[in-house]
Amino acid sequence: MRMVDLIEKKRDGKELTTEEIKFIIEGYTEGSIPDYQISALTMAIFFQDMSEKERADLTMSMVESGDQIDLSEIKGIKVDKHSTGGVGDTTTLVLGPLVAAVGVPVAKMSGRGLGHTGGTIDKLEAVSGFHVEIENKQFIDLVNKNKLAVIGQSGNLTPADKKLYSLRDVTATVNSIPLIASSIMSKKIAAGADAIVLDVKTGAGAFMKTLEDSKALAKAMVNIGNNVGRKTMAVISDMSQPLGFAIGNALEVKEAIDTLRGEGPEDLTELCLTLGSHMVFLAEKASSLEEARSLLQKAIGDGTALEAFKVFLQSQGGDSSIVDTPEKLPQASYKFELEAKQDGYVSEIIADAIGTAAMWLGAGRATKESEIDLAVGLELRKKIGDFVTKGESLVTIHSNSENIEQVKEKLYESMKLSTEKVEVPTLIHGEITE
Amino acid sequence: MRMVDLIEKKRDGKELTTEEIKFIIEGYTEGSIPDYQISALTMAIFFQDMSEKERADLTMSMVESGDQIDLSEIKGIKVDKHSTGGVGDTTTLVLGPLVAAVGVPVAKMSGRGLGHTGGTIDKLEAVSGFHVEIENKQFIDLVNKNKLAVIGQSGNLTPADKKLYSLRDVTATVNSIPLIASSIMSKKIAAGADAIVLDVKTGAGAFMKTLEDSKALAKAMVNIGNNVGRKTMAVISDMSQPLGFAIGNALEVKEAIDTLRGEGPEDLTELCLTLGSHMVFLAEKASSLEEARSLLQKAIGDGTALEAFKVFLQSQGGDSSIVDTPEKLPQASYKFELEAKQDGYVSEIIADAIGTAAMWLGAGRATKESEIDLAVGLELRKKIGDFVTKGESLVTIHSNSENIEQVKEKLYESMKLSTEKVEVPTLIHGEITE
Repeated sequence: MRMVDLIEKKRDGKELTTEEIKFIIEGYTEGSIPDYQISALTMAIFFQDMSEKERADLTMSMVESGDQIDLSEIKGIKVDKHSTGGVGDTTTLVLGPLVAAVGVPVAKMSGRGLGHTGGTIDKLEAVSGFHVEIENKQFIDLVNKNKLAVIGQSGNLTPADKKLYSLRDVTATVNSIPLIASSIMSKKIAAGADAIVLDVKTGAGAFMKTLEDSKALAKAMVNIGNNVGRKTMAVISDMSQPLGFAIGNALEVKEAIDTLRGEGPEDLTELCLTLGSHMVFLAEKASSLEEARSLLQKAIGDGTALEAFKVFLQSQGGDSSIVDTPEKLPQASYKFELEAKQDGYVSEIIADAIGTAAMWLGAGRATKESEIDLAVGLELRKKIGDFVTKGESLVTIHSNSENIEQVKEKLYESMKLSTEKVEVPTLIHGEITE
Repeated sequence: MRMVDLIEKKRDGKELTTEEIKFIIEGYTEGSIPDYQISALTMAIFFQDMSEKERADLTMSMVESGDQIDLSEIKGIKVDKHSTGGVGDTTTLVLGPLVAAVGVPVAKMSGRGLGHTGGTIDKLEAVSGFHVEIENKQFIDLVNKNKLAVIGQSGNLTPADKKLYSLRDVTATVNSIPLIASSIMSKKIAAGADAIVLDVKTGAGAFMKTLEDSKALAKAMVNIGNNVGRKTMAVISDMSQPLGFAIGNALEVKEAIDTLRGEGPEDLTELCLTLGSHMVFLAEKASSLEEARSLLQKAIGDGTALEAFKVFLQSQGGDSSIVDTPEKLPQASYKFELEAKQDGYVSEIIADAIGTAAMWLGAGRATKESEIDLAVGLELRKKIGDFVTKGESLVTIHSNSENIEQVKEKLYESMKLSTEKVEVPTLIHGEITE
């Protein structure tokens, strides 16, 4: 087999076989196929797409390129959730304890994040004492005991995906649905998921800006999952504005606690109930989505969801008293209000720009080396469709610096007001199950 | 400027600016832009094409990536000719002396070849004593004195093109018209041509198999030339069968002599008169193509073309007596006839396969290290449309080995006979001047 012939085959729109894809990914991982051939191939894929079969083969070849986490000692169906990114996404913090409370085992491998705010691990480290440096055995024991544990990424998972992603990033081939879908799915499968619930964001603040593209990505991932024997479904959720109110690490932990107590933002609560119902259903802890939802609502109502969060924090060394006393979470030195300059309806909240403002405050990492300030961030006081009067607060800025002119300016640019009434955006744009 | 943004721009079908193309080619030549970004870009170009302006910019950036030959001390308009390859192409050997005989300066930089037979230099080395290792000054003096000299490739011409071609070869991006056209044109321009006559082959034995593709390539090259200030035109000539009769180094020298004497194969003679007329016209040695052609015919008729060949050979150390006594050229030990197995009209001569058979005899190089046998090769006895009776010779095989069964088998496969009368293929399929 010669790589140049396989590039030509794909370039000419023909389907690569399972063996050919395996040859490519193995060769690339071990270094016998150079970057310059892979980048030509990925550009050809950008133009010629991949068939369902090719996508499944690519995913499994990437899974097999490195270690695979063995979660077989955890009882029950391990359901993982993946959100395709966005701003102010606190769903993971809420969903873990929420579905654990109704018996779904959540064995979460998580990372630190680059971008507007930290990753799930960074956020959890806002809780004093909490750590993810635990042994595999302890991790599995904790999931069996508490139904929820989080471990830092370890081992050599999907090295082919890592190499491929770095290469795509510098060769303008990131935006290819088969490549995005197989990248995400390979990571979930290598991490041991039996079933996968996908939360595909759509809108201005999402990776996929249009509903059409978001649906195509969702469909691609669901197809891959189901074709490789993992029950998979996707919810298309709105990211035309940030989800919830909080953007920032400790602020999001606080928001998660509120939500688990039943006092969270409406949109975040609804999305968590929707995603959670599918997780509970796929884990076979309920025989219908309706039943799953009412189990989750009950767990919120009777405090078991919040209790699951406390147990989880404690079991990994965290100070669980922050749940009842959230003031113990890191607090910023200053709070500033971003006052509306006029009356009007909020018509637009540019999520990307809001995220950038949060990063400027120190909530996220611009580079791998950046230090995160866990205390700082933003709390939205208004969302799209809300009416605001002049002087009323649009955003509360939590900052450790008094010098926030640049942040304020960015935020004013990010939030548009209109004199006309504005519709509240739909939260759930659809579900894809096959 | 970031390379990844330029790849994305091209990927999305937008036009790159002059500065952007210069940035890419300079960066690639000096090594600051890696192969993997260039291969992604060339694959994007494969799908998105390049505008006329981009093609001209790419060509000139490649010209400027290395040395440029200064032929300004040669009087007159330097017209170069380029054939896009094929089998049994003796046009260069004929055209040099032919147009020199009517006063067109031909300053030829030439190379050795990989493939079915050697390059022009290999062929000329069939003439005892002939050599191309001459100083630049002597080269220019010879052209001024005799209107014709050949020098081996020296200096660092179009290094960007060399790097790019090697990369395209292993990334399935050879077959891209803007890339082929700019590659060829950059080499001609760097070699100092004021005007360029292109001989674009079409048909089964050519690089471009269809008339449509050949025309597109011709048009692309003519556009580039004219856009960068070099008068350029193209003739589309037939390569559905080998041109002339001879395939092999000494055999082609002999055929060139025959043609310069007015006794060459009809197709080769006609193509040389056509290409030569355009060269003479572009060099402003005639005021019309008709006048140019009659000057060339006269040079053949009165012996001045043949005389120009003798002077040329002598001036570079060659034994010019081979012109009158071609038996002095290297001779193979054996001649075998390929006898027709039945009566019929020749309906097909697969040029590629004929070329491969010649290479097996030793006429060409399979790898850079191969030694060429200058004496061996093939002489076609029949061309498409000719009638042949059983036992009559189709091809004379000049070999230095008695073991030619494999060659014979290949040749039988290459020449198809039909019981129906077959049309002689058209030789000139068109001319492109803008």
